[in-house]
Amino acid sequence: MIMTRVPMQIQLTQSKKEKPDPATLVFGKTFTDHMLIVDYEEGKGWHSHRIVPYAPLTLDPAAIVFHYGQTVFEGMKAYKSEEGTIRMFRPEENMKRLNYSLDRLCMPRIDEENALYALNQLLQIDKDWIPTLDGTSLYIRPFVIATEAFLGVAPAKKYQFFMILSPVGSYYKEGIHPVKILVENEFVRATKGGTGSAKTAGNYASALKAQEVADQQGYSQVLWLDGVERKYVEEVGSMNIFFKINGEVVTPAINGSILEGITRKSILQLLRHWEVPVAERKISMDEIRNAYENGQLEEVFGTGTAAVISPVGELNWDGYKMIIGNGETGELSKKLYDTLTNIQTGKENDPFNWVYEIKKHIAQLA
Amino acid sequence: MIMTRVPMQIQLTQSKKEKPDPATLVFGKTFTDHMLIVDYEEGKGWHSHRIVPYAPLTLDPAAIVFHYGQTVFEGMKAYKSEEGTIRMFRPEENMKRLNYSLDRLCMPRIDEENALYALNQLLQIDKDWIPTLDGTSLYIRPFVIATEAFLGVAPAKKYQFFMILSPVGSYYKEGIHPVKILVENEFVRATKGGTGSAKTAGNYASALKAQEVADQQGYSQVLWLDGVERKYVEEVGSMNIFFKINGEVVTPAINGSILEGITRKSILQLLRHWEVPVAERKISMDEIRNAYENGQLEEVFGTGTAAVISPVGELNWDGYKMIIGNGETGELSKKLYDTLTNIQTGKENDPFNWVYEIKKHIAQLA
Ligand SMILES: Cc1ncc(COP(=O)(O)O)c(C=O)c1O
Ligand SMILES: Cc1ncc(COP(=O)(O)O)c(C=O)c1O
Repeated sequence: MIMTRVPMQIQLTQSKKEKPDPATLVFGKTFTDHMLIVDYEEGKGWHSHRIVPYAPLTLDPAAIVFHYGQTVFEGMKAYKSEEGTIRMFRPEENMKRLNYSLDRLCMPRIDEENALYALNQLLQIDKDWIPTLDGTSLYIRPFVIATEAFLGVAPAKKYQFFMILSPVGSYYKEGIHPVKILVENEFVRATKGGTGSAKTAGNYASALKAQEVADQQGYSQVLWLDGVERKYVEEVGSMNIFFKINGEVVTPAINGSILEGITRKSILQLLRHWEVPVAERKISMDEIRNAYENGQLEEVFGTGTAAVISPVGELNWDGYKMIIGNGETGELSKKLYDTLTNIQTGKENDPFNWVYEIKKHIAQLA
Repeated sequence: MIMTRVPMQIQLTQSKKEKPDPATLVFGKTFTDHMLIVDYEEGKGWHSHRIVPYAPLTLDPAAIVFHYGQTVFEGMKAYKSEEGTIRMFRPEENMKRLNYSLDRLCMPRIDEENALYALNQLLQIDKDWIPTLDGTSLYIRPFVIATEAFLGVAPAKKYQFFMILSPVGSYYKEGIHPVKILVENEFVRATKGGTGSAKTAGNYASALKAQEVADQQGYSQVLWLDGVERKYVEEVGSMNIFFKINGEVVTPAINGSILEGITRKSILQLLRHWEVPVAERKISMDEIRNAYENGQLEEVFGTGTAAVISPVGELNWDGYKMIIGNGETGELSKKLYDTLTNIQTGKENDPFNWVYEIKKHIAQLA
């Protein structure tokens, strides 16, 4: 891989923050000492790449991001291997998806190589923040916001691209365990023609209400159905969804309204490699219910960067409760979880070249 | 009306900005000397109401608004009458709708009376910014953003409520004139179950792409169709839409996916008062096309705070062009525009008590 070298201004912090106890880390509350900022201006392009101490942003109250939500983001993780190298999981895919999202929101594309180069530098600077306790990692949040001060509804002429880093704990406190999911009949996350396939703020804002209702009923997530017929499965909160039905693993096909998860893509590749029958297609709730009634709904699991694999122990569809695998983690779910996390952390071979080693690339560039 | 008196801290600017030439004002680019800020914290509620010099905001890069779009807004206008009093158009309705939007986005409700009281004070302080040239006004943008620094997808525990003010020019440079509108077949703004009926950022972000395509084809706005059947009319950019068909005025019924415009509501009231037949119901594009072919599509117009009434001279549905009223402003459109703007600016009687006089209320409170 050839990396473009953008001139990077680096300003190190004068007062390093205290690092949190890795045993008590919660998701997305603690941030490291530094962050990346890149500016964009129409006519000038992306410029002024800089790594600076993590600090509040200063934005005009009329900045478009506050009013018309012109913003996109990504989420990925870095791990420290036992040899002290920094490993990431397919970050090139995240940069590609970031550009896909930017396009959908009429925002300027970033240079993927430059962004990865900047990330290499940022991770080198804040590498002591990568926790090493089992299950922990450094969560990376790249995001782009429209900063122009203008109340007209139009794409902005000014943007800022950021990367911030947050050490995160294990998603599962006591090992992988199944979650209860409510099938959502009232609220809709996204429809074909909308922004569902982009990683943009509005999709998550619109999901909060359904999430609130699910919480109150003791469910940790909602399973979204399609907005048109309200019968086909879409995805879960921030995960794609898979069903193992009578030996075959099925997941909703990419349809313009769900996010194309990188974990989803990797799981499909892994399953095909293992010669497990897989299908990407439309799946109706009626089909799920039938499979359940016939005893063929063997496993259900969500996939995403945060939890990697999240087994589903219960699905509630309008009061009809389906208990999957006695509410326990299925064999395939467990195997996928172990394989993926072992590849990510370096405990297992990486047959697909998914792992991206930070140290190696920096060395190449030096 | 009884107003609650919230303690308000007022810090006046030390350096007043130069006011722009009212003849060259553009929408949403110039802001006045002061703004309102109110803080919210879970457990503490809304507090620290203050009017301060207009200045950049300082927010953590992890503030929820940047990532998950938890934000809502409103838009209204203030006018200065010939006697120097400050007039607004039904601001109570905007505060009610703000609370409706806040609910949808799982954000804390504001006290409507307090917000209006605060607006009274802010307008008194910046009253010299209200332009008086024919067609100009002071645009008011209240908005609420989630400020908590947290990357979990959940309603924030901290918010800020702002009101900023922007002097705006006449929407029509040379008097009211018709626009060309493209019926949108590919992109969808909102579906039932989504956030379409709330005034929240994501709805506008998702509209940018369609707008861009329309622009390139020489159309100033798109007409959205429903996301389910893609045949029923929804609304236009930031306007509701009305059709005069064979003497009857029809507009899409409130259906959970369109914004309930305050101009729309007022137009319906005015038409009923004039005993013009009106209907709020589903309207398909087939019906519009049929009416057009039968010579019964007499007028089409959009309604919204920015333009008040925006006559539509051309509708393009998938290449089928309908030229309405020879591309000229219809009689009813013109009458509605004149009546509403005359009521707003005080040139005509206000039979419905729509006008809200700032001076009067401040006097009552003094
Ligand atoms: C809506 C949504 N779906 C699916 C996913 C899973 O995507 P990935 O596997 O790339 O993390 C995410 C999280 O990124 C998401 O936010
Ligand atoms: C999506 C949308 N529809 C309709 C309207 C018209 O509403 P109102 O008449 O209250 O300005 C607006 C503008 O506020 C809008 O943003």
